[in-house]
Amino acid sequence: MTERTSPLLTDLYQFTMLQAYFDQGMADTAVFEFFVRKLPSSRNFLMAAGLEQVLDFLEDLHFTPQELDWLANCGRLHRRFVDSLHELRFTGDIQAMPEGTIFFTDEPILRVVAPLPQAQLVETRLINLLQFQTLVASKAARIRLAAPDSLLVDFGLRRAHGAEAGLLSARASYLAGFNGSSTVLAGMKWGIPLFGTMAHSYIQAHEQETDAFEHFARSHPLASTMLIDTYDTEAAARNLVPLAHKLAREGINIQAVRLDSGDLAEHARQVRGILDQAGLTEITIFASGNLDEYKLAELVAAGAPIDGFGVGTRMNTSADRPYLDCAYKLQEYAGVARRKRSEGKTTWPGRKQVYRSLGDDDLMAGDFLTTADAVQSGQPLLVPVMRQGRRLAKSPALGAIRDHARAELARLALPLRALTPATSPYCVTVAEPLRLLAAEVDRRT
Amino acid sequence: MTERTSPLLTDLYQFTMLQAYFDQGMADTAVFEFFVRKLPSSRNFLMAAGLEQVLDFLEDLHFTPQELDWLANCGRLHRRFVDSLHELRFTGDIQAMPEGTIFFTDEPILRVVAPLPQAQLVETRLINLLQFQTLVASKAARIRLAAPDSLLVDFGLRRAHGAEAGLLSARASYLAGFNGSSTVLAGMKWGIPLFGTMAHSYIQAHEQETDAFEHFARSHPLASTMLIDTYDTEAAARNLVPLAHKLAREGINIQAVRLDSGDLAEHARQVRGILDQAGLTEITIFASGNLDEYKLAELVAAGAPIDGFGVGTRMNTSADRPYLDCAYKLQEYAGVARRKRSEGKTTWPGRKQVYRSLGDDDLMAGDFLTTADAVQSGQPLLVPVMRQGRRLAKSPALGAIRDHARAELARLALPLRALTPATSPYCVTVAEPLRLLAAEVDRRT
Repeated sequence: MTERTSPLLTDLYQFTMLQAYFDQGMADTAVFEFFVRKLPSSRNFLMAAGLEQVLDFLEDLHFTPQELDWLANCGRLHRRFVDSLHELRFTGDIQAMPEGTIFFTDEPILRVVAPLPQAQLVETRLINLLQFQTLVASKAARIRLAAPDSLLVDFGLRRAHGAEAGLLSARASYLAGFNGSSTVLAGMKWGIPLFGTMAHSYIQAHEQETDAFEHFARSHPLASTMLIDTYDTEAAARNLVPLAHKLAREGINIQAVRLDSGDLAEHARQVRGILDQAGLTEITIFASGNLDEYKLAELVAAGAPIDGFGVGTRMNTSADRPYLDCAYKLQEYAGVARRKRSEGKTTWPGRKQVYRSLGDDDLMAGDFLTTADAVQSGQPLLVPVMRQGRRLAKSPALGAIRDHARAELARLALPLRALTPATSPYCVTVAEPLRLLAAEVDRRT
Repeated sequence: MTERTSPLLTDLYQFTMLQAYFDQGMADTAVFEFFVRKLPSSRNFLMAAGLEQVLDFLEDLHFTPQELDWLANCGRLHRRFVDSLHELRFTGDIQAMPEGTIFFTDEPILRVVAPLPQAQLVETRLINLLQFQTLVASKAARIRLAAPDSLLVDFGLRRAHGAEAGLLSARASYLAGFNGSSTVLAGMKWGIPLFGTMAHSYIQAHEQETDAFEHFARSHPLASTMLIDTYDTEAAARNLVPLAHKLAREGINIQAVRLDSGDLAEHARQVRGILDQAGLTEITIFASGNLDEYKLAELVAAGAPIDGFGVGTRMNTSADRPYLDCAYKLQEYAGVARRKRSEGKTTWPGRKQVYRSLGDDDLMAGDFLTTADAVQSGQPLLVPVMRQGRRLAKSPALGAIRDHARAELARLALPLRALTPATSPYCVTVAEPLRLLAAEVDRRT
């Protein structure tokens, strides 16, 4: 999203807190980290996503005169404080895991170091961006693992939760390993490959199904996908055979058929048989309809002759678990480490780093969560991406992020790649320096 | 949303179908209807929402030169077709159920009558807008029914699926009966009442919790809500007592305390006791943290002394069921009724109307689904809202929609208001004229 997001897209409490900070002159450096408290039981790993949109938001953070007027007149805030927002920009530093990186419970994927009011104000939108894309990328990665060799296309825009969810889930699923999306705007914005077939309404608008097929093929002579389940799937496949032969003689190519209802494996076998018997072995079969990683794994295991899948709603609403237990927490203020101790929500204090070791087999062998200044073997996962409110480097291309994500998935041990919960979860060790810091913070408060 | 939504926020197949229609000269009048195929088992009713944003989208539908350039160069569409989009506007008619209306399986809540290409093109965004707000309004209505007398505030922006989801869920939950939202932009856009407290980070940024309370109260002397669970809930409540007395003498008012972790009912009882014993009976108790209609019903049944609830993630992701089995289907083209017969997805053909009867007790007694021109007793639920691409009347104020929603909930029989599935669902009768039309369509195809 290159469009500006209003800084009023936040919780009211950010402004009431900011006014209290303002009245008290509290503007020292604060350190916040974003992390997931606990992985859902149906996820063996998560995949970081959304950083790019966070950096866009921070670089462009400012208030318009209209927004300031509204705040000044909303009855909750005093004029001197609202006037001070006129100059507010984000001037902080960001460290983060690159998008596509796999991470686990308690591991920060982003750290903000900025004057307290700035770091506080951006909380809501940062969580909003990071949790959603991470949620979708993590779900999409599971779907990719369930069908490693299939064409996978995001079909979810219509039942995504609004415009931005539809657009960003095209991005998140592509970076996690999908081949593309049906969302045209995602193609325009990010160059994501676009896929599309036809709707039942297109078939129904014609008196004869075969006419609908022929008109479509003639309008798209290089490639077209025919939706064949509007009335009777196998009958449609049989009717397609003479048409495909006729069109082929004119150089018009039918690329695929799509199944969207019924027993997909059984229909695919029947249709494959009809097409193959007619010599139409080049026409591929594409399936859609309430799919997710579990259905795909079933279809793949059953050897259903399906070449590609359109996966929509259940992927981009992350339907089995539509949110993450994530938080953006103050870890340090004015040079002093802080810790929240609410029941069931205790956090590790201070600036942290995650170190990852690979085994001899090149698989992830375990992570260490420790303080940012500790000495620790392994590869540090959080890297600097923004200093004083400006990106340190041009953002990586989406294709490069996708390559990184694929490499990350390849480094996961088999039990973590499985759809079922791993009997022993990935090992994240809280290292001694962090334990000592936590004990010190507890003694102090 | 008054911002323009790009018409490229749609599925690629809309454009490939539109090109085939263009090549074939198919631009007769089409009738599409949006409906839910099957209510989720955990919903006894649904509440229509999202119409306002649909009408905004349709009134403003047009392509920019940049969008047309991109389409012309995307490699899928030919120039003559793309050029024809330059003039495309929505010139159709819309009938719809007013927002806040309760509806059931198979009942259309919106009908589009427009030239085929227009009615087709808008499919994706119409579903995207209607399903999401309907999903959230329906969930929020259940939450309101679970706690009829409590203050209910939408706290869900951070874990909503992106910006638009956060914003629109503030609107949808408010119209369904919430008292307000923490989302500031929703206050600016729609005048939705705003509520806010403070974050744990605000407390943690101070060395002493009581200092944090005092600074906040002095910054917000008219009213403030103190978050008391950062370290020890009851200790914080006890420390608040002398502070509240001191501030009261200066005319500074602490309005409420907030609980956000642990056993909310038990903490509320303890805290209520501490406050009451100190004569602070005016300070109310507000609770938040993973709440939904089931938790609220529990807390209300247990008599927990909680005055208000912040309900976030589980409400605005509709977490137990994050999508609806909804569709936007072609019902008529060029004057001829149509019907889809895919397995498990058969639809009722033609233009339809829903008639509702009330019993002597003023409760909804049953609906009739019939053809739009049939004679039928009861109140017709679909009403004209747009003609030739223009609204027929100024949109109702959000407050009026909210009043309508409340009246609708009051007309629901008790078993339908319950959180558990009603043993006998609400009766929707498919009337004779519609059955005859379906039979006629089946004979024809």
